Amino acid sequence: MPSFKSTSDQAGWPQDVGILSMEVYFPAQYVDQQELEVFDGVSPGKYTIGLGQTKMGFCSDREDINSLCLTVLSRLMERTGIGYENIGRLEVGTETIIDKSKSVKSCLMQLFEESGNTDVEGIDTTNACYGGTAALINAINWVESSSWDGRYAVAIAGDIAVYATGAARPTGGAGAVAMLVGPHAPLVMERGLRGSHMCHVYDFYKPDLSSEYPTVDGKLSIQCYLSALDACYRTFSRKAAAKEPSSPPMSLHQMDAFIFHSPYCKLVQKSLARLCFNDFLNCPADQVAIRYPGLEAFREKKLEDTYFDRDVEKAFMAHSQDLFFSKTKPSLLIATQVGNMYTPSLFGGLASFISGNSVENLAGKRVALFSYGSGLAATMFSLRITQDVGPDSPLTHFVASLQDLQQRLDARYKVSPPEFAETMKLRQDTHHKAPYNAVGSIDRLFPGTWYLTKVDEMHRRQYERRPLVGVSNVAGNVATVHMKETSSVTGESTQQLHV
Amino acid sequence: MPSFKSTSDQAGWPQDVGILSMEVYFPAQYVDQQELEVFDGVSPGKYTIGLGQTKMGFCSDREDINSLCLTVLSRLMERTGIGYENIGRLEVGTETIIDKSKSVKSCLMQLFEESGNTDVEGIDTTNACYGGTAALINAINWVESSSWDGRYAVAIAGDIAVYATGAARPTGGAGAVAMLVGPHAPLVMERGLRGSHMCHVYDFYKPDLSSEYPTVDGKLSIQCYLSALDACYRTFSRKAAAKEPSSPPMSLHQMDAFIFHSPYCKLVQKSLARLCFNDFLNCPADQVAIRYPGLEAFREKKLEDTYFDRDVEKAFMAHSQDLFFSKTKPSLLIATQVGNMYTPSLFGGLASFISGNSVENLAGKRVALFSYGSGLAATMFSLRITQDVGPDSPLTHFVASLQDLQQRLDARYKVSPPEFAETMKLRQDTHHKAPYNAVGSIDRLFPGTWYLTKVDEMHRRQYERRPLVGVSNVAGNVATVHMKETSSVTGESTQQLHV
Repeated sequence: MPSFKSTSDQAGWPQDVGILSMEVYFPAQYVDQQELEVFDGVSPGKYTIGLGQTKMGFCSDREDINSLCLTVLSRLMERTGIGYENIGRLEVGTETIIDKSKSVKSCLMQLFEESGNTDVEGIDTTNACYGGTAALINAINWVESSSWDGRYAVAIAGDIAVYATGAARPTGGAGAVAMLVGPHAPLVMERGLRGSHMCHVYDFYKPDLSSEYPTVDGKLSIQCYLSALDACYRTFSRKAAAKEPSSPPMSLHQMDAFIFHSPYCKLVQKSLARLCFNDFLNCPADQVAIRYPGLEAFREKKLEDTYFDRDVEKAFMAHSQDLFFSKTKPSLLIATQVGNMYTPSLFGGLASFISGNSVENLAGKRVALFSYGSGLAATMFSLRITQDVGPDSPLTHFVASLQDLQQRLDARYKVSPPEFAETMKLRQDTHHKAPYNAVGSIDRLFPGTWYLTKVDEMHRRQYERRPLVGVSNVAGNVATVHMKETSSVTGESTQQLHV
Repeated sequence: MPSFKSTSDQAGWPQDVGILSMEVYFPAQYVDQQELEVFDGVSPGKYTIGLGQTKMGFCSDREDINSLCLTVLSRLMERTGIGYENIGRLEVGTETIIDKSKSVKSCLMQLFEESGNTDVEGIDTTNACYGGTAALINAINWVESSSWDGRYAVAIAGDIAVYATGAARPTGGAGAVAMLVGPHAPLVMERGLRGSHMCHVYDFYKPDLSSEYPTVDGKLSIQCYLSALDACYRTFSRKAAAKEPSSPPMSLHQMDAFIFHSPYCKLVQKSLARLCFNDFLNCPADQVAIRYPGLEAFREKKLEDTYFDRDVEKAFMAHSQDLFFSKTKPSLLIATQVGNMYTPSLFGGLASFISGNSVENLAGKRVALFSYGSGLAATMFSLRITQDVGPDSPLTHFVASLQDLQQRLDARYKVSPPEFAETMKLRQDTHHKAPYNAVGSIDRLFPGTWYLTKVDEMHRRQYERRPLVGVSNVAGNVATVHMKETSSVTGESTQQLHV
């Protein structure tokens, strides 16, 4: 069995476990949020400024959670050149449930058939937008556990976020992210620093199993998000202080970037301001006037009373504005232009951050990430980026592989709001229909995209794939650092998966 | 933070990670399978002999996946006396999906509220009956990972298995199992020996999200189960040989017990025979006549051609009969009398095995477990039972805590087949109904059972709890071995959970 397990790893944790490579997939079509404002008859700027969104990706009836994950995993494997026989753990985080029993992971095992590798642990994890983080944590724990056999893990996050017509509809989105996990990673999960906050709440949930749409208590959801952020930051800070007592207390200055789960971009900006307010409340009294001039009056405020305090929000949005532009805004590229992808949202943020930076700028940086899933499950964790910036380093390959993000976003097909509404109606009317033959255009899909062809009378789903022609693979791959594998890029012929 | 993390654990895997304690919950009512045969007008023995089932547990509209898991976690915590603040990871494996987004785990966080502990990783894992095994593996990996902070993990498996009227209905069941996971466990997960088989198949799945009933291809499901068993045994054997090259090759004689996921008991007996057939095919040619007298003619058979080969089945059922009675039948107590609990089934088998044995008999034993979830995901793994049989040892407490299994099974309320059918009809008609006030009897529920009171117009569920009066806690608890905690047993008053 090929392995990059070193002798020193035999009875303990391998070094620098984290994310080795990352693939991002979003639909090839979008609706423009400004046009949607006009179409919906709402005031100009409601979506574009109020929510901070510019474009929203969406799927026709050709894509479901299985096809999204088939696509993103295929592309990750093809680009990195790692054979399927070298994956020992694979799991999927999603809340796009189309079967209550059969996992998406089991569907992905079709891609492993040629390799003959079926010894692949992991299934699906679910709690709203948190599932991808759970999958990543599980993958990292596996690599650090005694059951790790030297192979790679893959964590996939995928979702289709759609809302009924109304105020929430412009906060949709869709996509998938696949992360290759192992030791000697360019993005290392910092040890002993995860701060989680889990509790029982009905802020956003999906009890109507026959519908794609969630049940949402919008105001409660914002309160839950912000209170979970406060709690995770508190626990994360406490663990950081315990781990490195000689370091300065945790604050916005201890991290080079803050990346958040993004239901919509404006909430992310408010979240950074919220962390700034946390820092302010934690600031020693004698330093407040120097570090937060003009904000002294807010010292009497309490976290739990200020979720909707406009004065606090405004003051700390202003105070943190420069920090937002430097430490958070670069992570919002995909969130702004695709929308809320649910479980992949946080990792789309990470990919955006990497994509917008040079290898030299990224080296040695420390990144905090906040994952939130309604219901609720939330974790703040951190990644330390490697110092290795050589031309053939894992970081160089990682950054190179994400350089085309903006180009891929720009290459999408713009759909008019009426056609978007029709597509949503089609999805709504045919959701879970069996037998069903998908009717959406195939030509618009990106090369290499898996798509649904039909659902038979037993609800069994069949998929085919658009040829990969025209997609260039990034030269070199992350795998070469650890193991030499030949890359087998899919040819021009359409692939087909049978049930 | 209380911790049983020792200094030697600081940078690696702690010793003897596994299951420290186990709680089993099954419904307080059942239908008799012999009476069901008469009621259904099928030939006598079809369910009792053909399937090997005697009684089937089922739930009224008072119980759902949330209530089952609330009950089993409450009882585990009360019995072991471990405070909720000492749990650092909790997850749920289930395929009883009543919300596509909100996890059962988040619902369970209500029980943690009083402790103030919200820093609890883990969410829900799903792939048919495999979810509980995934939760257990994740819990163990967490304890072995760098993010383990010395607290316990809990893995819960829970499900309600119901089928539409017809041939599959007598293979239903319901229940939940909670497992306390940590180091220095009486039941230790053997390292580096898990053999998994994962692939894409539509043998049993739940694509009709509005119904509790699955879509089943019965014949395919048996073939998938048996082929997954073959594959897992092969991989498990290969890993065992690599780990201990000087040991004899893996065979039925290398293990003291074989426990299987049990869709129905007859399939479990066939599964042990199947492993015997595997051993036979692996047997060196010169030893076949001695070890398998009279079976030589079957040497030409192949695994992949014999899933439905009656001659092979009959011959190896006979040959393995004694082994079945000694190594597997003791694990079928709950499976026979409650039915298929789906995710908890395998662990109900483990509890049955422990319950039917003395501490002295169990000490040092090695147990193989086969977990199967349609779709499919399967793993064979093994547990080594501690040698420590002292009166206050973890094993002694473990065994003592399960001594009342038969007594609890006998204390159940027998429901007539017509009333059973009515209850199924009620569940069918009111599944996912909102608002809804549950109507089933509360008096029949075991003391300490959480039950559904109402679902409001927003689908938010409310639960109350039957008083615990009359339930004695096992003296002493597993936790005392590692950490002293005061036990806070719930009093007589009814507890209520608000949304």
